[in-house]
Amino acid sequence: MDGHRISMLGTGLIGDFYSNTLHGQRGRDRVQVVYSRSESRGVAFRDRWAIPESTTDLAAAVNHPDTDVVVVALPNFLHEEAIGLAAKAGKAVLCTKPLGRTAEEARRMLAMVEDAGVFNGYLEDLCYTPKTLKAVAAVESGAIGDVTWVRSRETHPGPHSAWFWDGRLTGGGAIIDLGCHCIEIVRNFVGKGNRPVAVMCHTDTLVHPIADEDNAIALIRFESGAIGQFEVSWTFRGGMDLRDEVAGTHGTIWMNHFLRTGFEMFTAGGGNGYVAEKAETSAGWLFPVGDEVSELGYVDMFTDMFRSIDNGTAPRETFYDGYVVNAVMDACYRSAKSGIWEPVEMEWRGGTTARIASTPERYEGLVVIKRELLPDGRHKLILKDEATGDFSDRVVAGA
Amino acid sequence: MDGHRISMLGTGLIGDFYSNTLHGQRGRDRVQVVYSRSESRGVAFRDRWAIPESTTDLAAAVNHPDTDVVVVALPNFLHEEAIGLAAKAGKAVLCTKPLGRTAEEARRMLAMVEDAGVFNGYLEDLCYTPKTLKAVAAVESGAIGDVTWVRSRETHPGPHSAWFWDGRLTGGGAIIDLGCHCIEIVRNFVGKGNRPVAVMCHTDTLVHPIADEDNAIALIRFESGAIGQFEVSWTFRGGMDLRDEVAGTHGTIWMNHFLRTGFEMFTAGGGNGYVAEKAETSAGWLFPVGDEVSELGYVDMFTDMFRSIDNGTAPRETFYDGYVVNAVMDACYRSAKSGIWEPVEMEWRGGTTARIASTPERYEGLVVIKRELLPDGRHKLILKDEATGDFSDRVVAGA
Amino acid sequence: MDGHRISMLGTGLIGDFYSNTLHGQRGRDRVQVVYSRSESRGVAFRDRWAIPESTTDLAAAVNHPDTDVVVVALPNFLHEEAIGLAAKAGKAVLCTKPLGRTAEEARRMLAMVEDAGVFNGYLEDLCYTPKTLKAVAAVESGAIGDVTWVRSRETHPGPHSAWFWDGRLTGGGAIIDLGCHCIEIVRNFVGKGNRPVAVMCHTDTLVHPIADEDNAIALIRFESGAIGQFEVSWTFRGGMDLRDEVAGTHGTIWMNHFLRTGFEMFTAGGGNGYVAEKAETSAGWLFPVGDEVSELGYVDMFTDMFRSIDNGTAPRETFYDGYVVNAVMDACYRSAKSGIWEPVEMEWRGGTTARIASTPERYEGLVVIKRELLPDGRHKLILKDEATGDFSDRVVAGA
Amino acid sequence: MDGHRISMLGTGLIGDFYSNTLHGQRGRDRVQVVYSRSESRGVAFRDRWAIPESTTDLAAAVNHPDTDVVVVALPNFLHEEAIGLAAKAGKAVLCTKPLGRTAEEARRMLAMVEDAGVFNGYLEDLCYTPKTLKAVAAVESGAIGDVTWVRSRETHPGPHSAWFWDGRLTGGGAIIDLGCHCIEIVRNFVGKGNRPVAVMCHTDTLVHPIADEDNAIALIRFESGAIGQFEVSWTFRGGMDLRDEVAGTHGTIWMNHFLRTGFEMFTAGGGNGYVAEKAETSAGWLFPVGDEVSELGYVDMFTDMFRSIDNGTAPRETFYDGYVVNAVMDACYRSAKSGIWEPVEMEWRGGTTARIASTPERYEGLVVIKRELLPDGRHKLILKDEATGDFSDRVVAGA
Repeated sequence: MDGHRISMLGTGLIGDFYSNTLHGQRGRDRVQVVYSRSESRGVAFRDRWAIPESTTDLAAAVNHPDTDVVVVALPNFLHEEAIGLAAKAGKAVLCTKPLGRTAEEARRMLAMVEDAGVFNGYLEDLCYTPKTLKAVAAVESGAIGDVTWVRSRETHPGPHSAWFWDGRLTGGGAIIDLGCHCIEIVRNFVGKGNRPVAVMCHTDTLVHPIADEDNAIALIRFESGAIGQFEVSWTFRGGMDLRDEVAGTHGTIWMNHFLRTGFEMFTAGGGNGYVAEKAETSAGWLFPVGDEVSELGYVDMFTDMFRSIDNGTAPRETFYDGYVVNAVMDACYRSAKSGIWEPVEMEWRGGTTARIASTPERYEGLVVIKRELLPDGRHKLILKDEATGDFSDRVVAGA
Repeated sequence: MDGHRISMLGTGLIGDFYSNTLHGQRGRDRVQVVYSRSESRGVAFRDRWAIPESTTDLAAAVNHPDTDVVVVALPNFLHEEAIGLAAKAGKAVLCTKPLGRTAEEARRMLAMVEDAGVFNGYLEDLCYTPKTLKAVAAVESGAIGDVTWVRSRETHPGPHSAWFWDGRLTGGGAIIDLGCHCIEIVRNFVGKGNRPVAVMCHTDTLVHPIADEDNAIALIRFESGAIGQFEVSWTFRGGMDLRDEVAGTHGTIWMNHFLRTGFEMFTAGGGNGYVAEKAETSAGWLFPVGDEVSELGYVDMFTDMFRSIDNGTAPRETFYDGYVVNAVMDACYRSAKSGIWEPVEMEWRGGTTARIASTPERYEGLVVIKRELLPDGRHKLILKDEATGDFSDRVVAGA
Repeated sequence: MDGHRISMLGTGLIGDFYSNTLHGQRGRDRVQVVYSRSESRGVAFRDRWAIPESTTDLAAAVNHPDTDVVVVALPNFLHEEAIGLAAKAGKAVLCTKPLGRTAEEARRMLAMVEDAGVFNGYLEDLCYTPKTLKAVAAVESGAIGDVTWVRSRETHPGPHSAWFWDGRLTGGGAIIDLGCHCIEIVRNFVGKGNRPVAVMCHTDTLVHPIADEDNAIALIRFESGAIGQFEVSWTFRGGMDLRDEVAGTHGTIWMNHFLRTGFEMFTAGGGNGYVAEKAETSAGWLFPVGDEVSELGYVDMFTDMFRSIDNGTAPRETFYDGYVVNAVMDACYRSAKSGIWEPVEMEWRGGTTARIASTPERYEGLVVIKRELLPDGRHKLILKDEATGDFSDRVVAGA
Repeated sequence: MDGHRISMLGTGLIGDFYSNTLHGQRGRDRVQVVYSRSESRGVAFRDRWAIPESTTDLAAAVNHPDTDVVVVALPNFLHEEAIGLAAKAGKAVLCTKPLGRTAEEARRMLAMVEDAGVFNGYLEDLCYTPKTLKAVAAVESGAIGDVTWVRSRETHPGPHSAWFWDGRLTGGGAIIDLGCHCIEIVRNFVGKGNRPVAVMCHTDTLVHPIADEDNAIALIRFESGAIGQFEVSWTFRGGMDLRDEVAGTHGTIWMNHFLRTGFEMFTAGGGNGYVAEKAETSAGWLFPVGDEVSELGYVDMFTDMFRSIDNGTAPRETFYDGYVVNAVMDACYRSAKSGIWEPVEMEWRGGTTARIASTPERYEGLVVIKRELLPDGRHKLILKDEATGDFSDRVVAGA
């Protein structure tokens, strides 16, 4: 029943979420040492989460003799160095999203871990929310037929940390910050083996005086014909809007992860204020979330990672997935500039997926376009004559 | 207190909705005569709505001596003939959506009514839903700041009538049927004077064996920088999904017109079946709508039309609006083929609109990127040094 | 197509709602004269709703030579005098809720109109909301089986007018103001012929320094065994909470009439403020209602009233219904004092209703308590041996 | 980082939930041995949850040399024997709800563990849902002022196991099964130190041919004047309806734990069927729950229990709480028979709680009954003259 001992790199909001998850409830895995560029932040973080040691020496944290897993929770521009050290140390390495600032950078990190033969996990929490896991399982079981369209939306009023706003350090704006989540959510629903072929993206900087996009919308065309659609923004007002919608040939799934989860509170004021991540107000109607680390997927994510390490299997999300996400984001940025559909350029390992298809029903030699149930139990058929292209309707006895 | 007498052209689903609205409640306007290509459908319609007369002679219906208003509720390919007759008769003419199959056709119909100097109204009911009217008023009053993005979605499992599926008669597929609603909803929110500049559209035929699109997604770029987004489909499963979302620099609006309006019913079976337009099931969890003709905008639409006739003013929605919508749809079809942003080509009468802009707050010479309220009442500022491009944060006393 | 001409008595909030409804949209019925105890309020009201005349003479308003309908929109303690005058004038009389302050008072008003033989309508708008009308029709069609329980809830932060707070003028507190709605909603669902037998009620004055109750909860036991439950309050925070829930042996209905109707807005401030009746805030997350007079039932209520006058039939809600409601409220007040179930004392005209009953299914001589569908398609039966009283379960092939 | 080793008694649905929770995610506590009255069910359970041992010997399970915690997941009539053995063994004992079939039985079990001095935890999962924990914390921080009313509702179509339907084994019907949850939820919101004084309860057996109640509604009056209200049923149609509502003098909380949690799915059929506990259908609109063991409170419940054992402190829910719940249920059954408010009879350890009170604001010698914000920023005051009892209103400048 022994758990893992972890080197935690980084003390920002994401490091807090990770440590809260690992040390919350009755988990058997523990952070042994935390690295921060700032000694004071490291000490505060150590105390906050009851971690034995903190350090400002990155290599020392990675190479700590008692840890077997390295969690990279650093700003984007520091991922590559940390992963290089972890790979060299031969330790399992789990990296926060996005993997790289570009597909090229991600490709190098992928090569590092694969060359070293170390376990690699991509910490894409939103692919592990309990709702998402159950919904993906429903899709895989055939509950909604073939997936035709996925909308993934993540918008809020902007990040809490200064470095997030600096595209030089992150690789971009709202796409790099939020689009990476959406792209991988979409891939989980259309199928990991369904190649993202081309991307059309629109970006703009509408509200904030920054160099990078604070708004973006993109369409991703997959090999099967399915369309992924993401909407990301740092200009949304009202909290954090985290919703996914999935359409299939036989069904529909709607998920709301944050603002409308069955928890509603009105307060005339008073109370202690914290409502939920990115909440904008502390009075009036508020929409808290029950257990954020569970509902945002952190709990199931780390369970998958550590179980996979224990079992010697690949986790649901690997560095290769992070690399694919970076490749799609690269295409988004190219498309936003060119105004055309841009191909997704990458090394594809996922095989091929057939076109969404349905064999139409026939009725007396005609193609059945639609079958409707009438209140009296009979069926109304919309029919097409393939020879003439003419349409007609007919009411027939019910099945 | 005298009302208007109406020549109703057409006896399909939309004619039913119109007559139900006009003859429902305590309205003072009445349908005097109904035209149908089929005598039996005309008679049935006449009896259904207590209309004095029916005819299979289009000109006779239009020229009926006791009517002063002509309502065109015919399939798209019959609009032009009917409008020509009404214009010649010098009567007020109200035409269902879409106005034309193409902008060119719409342009001709616009010229007919303008040349004849007759009152013209574009029966775009979804711009008149009570929620939409109140939301547009809120936007115009400044409640959400400048509009940055509008999503309008209308999807269902496909139309009930055979002719709708025949692009030769309609001008297209789901865009012509549903996109016309969405485009005009978007225009109401971004402002009628905000020119739609260019369009990017993706279409596909995924499920139904037809020649036209059963799925489409489009982005519309307006002069202000605002983005309209529509999603239309004849492949949605679960009923009719009618939702609009509006984002502004200072607020957000979400409207659900059909499937989630605060009316939920579970039935193990039994009962008489009718739930709502396009409902797919009559057992299990069902989501009826209270008063469909009110909630879908028909009541407020006809009120605006008849009041405008009485007052000698233009209604909220005119043939010119219908023409603009056709021009945007034409650009959508071009873009779906070309894969690039296509300009919206039309005669523009709406003037110019300034770019969405905000003058950033400053703090000690730095630009304030974001101001957050902390639980202790202080504010956290994200700051940008414009000279270096560097970002930093600072906690200051609250306002 | 001639409509009715109305004497409107009263210029408070309810008079505004009524006149807004009558003069809104394209209605053919008009208010001819308005009565107010205050000349200035009468003049302002007249101008607000484009009414030809106003007066401070109650009898003159009732006896106006051009009106045939009297609408009583006065405070409760003035109903009896007004109705007496209208009955004497032989005019149709429509009275706002509650009919009386007590059943005895209501009984006298009922006798007045019945003795005079005039049309009488009880203006219980919430029994006419489009959702309620459709839900009642669904229940009557058998969609949810026998009704077992109805919860009707109306709570808000308290009335807008001073006289509402004075039990001497109204007859009580939150029960008289709000409970009257709930009781009649419940009756519509359990059936008007289902006798309310006894009542258990708890009241308290929790927040406001008044003599009457600002909170009340009651259970109403009907002859069939069905239970009505109402919750009324002047202490609710967050707006106006108007919800009904109906349980039946084969289904469930949930209705939300106000705070969650598919219309949600976040505003950081700005805009013109009006959100909805009893809204508490004008920034943050707000929940407006589309068309209040339609969604609160005023439109369908007046349609039913005027059509019934035209047809010479009784409307859905009559003075007798108002009298039954008063009798139930009297029992509530008695029960709140006695702490026991109090009988509802009244003249009952509704006949009898059978006990809710179901004939249980049998399986091999045992009673089937429950039948569950298993994932593999088989059924699990919970069985009872009536001889021994023992329970067992068995898995059998599906139907 | 060592966890606990557990003797699990019982292999029904609740045992599955407990073991799923304990062995799910990365927990450090493990079930060592499971007891079942049936050898085959014990073996199946052991295999299902990877438990080392199973037995049909209750004492052997309790006294297993490697376990330090006993979890009682047995039918109600077997609790006392199991707890007696655990107390004698000196082990920590955690017992599922309800603690006893009557307060007298619960009192004996409480005495057993207190006399033996062993740790005792009452496994009331619904007091530990993440939403409930956060909501209780908000209430305790003052976010909604003084609690005036709590509604807790748990209804579904009836239990899955045969013994649940036999009142001889359980102690009653829907109250014993579901009311115990609601009562303790209410206590968490009104305050554990707020004495439940008296109870008014209505029960009926409406649908199922059983001897005990399948429907119940109760009001619980607390010392502060707050009212708890529960609605429990085995006749609800549509799944499992788990909702709580809390009203306070300054705010409102609404929680929906099951049917409307932001996860909605429509399926035309197909898929593998499991949706959620007590779901009634596997096609049409379905409402799954993300992670049931988390959202129903099992995860946080066991964390509190094991942390409390480790820390030597009492958990949030103890046997004493279970005893109070039984005492309230006893009063419910008495009230259902007597038709009057019945006192809650028990040994009270919770101290006293003051009456809900508010000191009214005054304005120029008058009591302010209500203060409303007008659209123009001014305030409207409803005022009461305490000498005369008269009410008036006044518009004044805003604050």
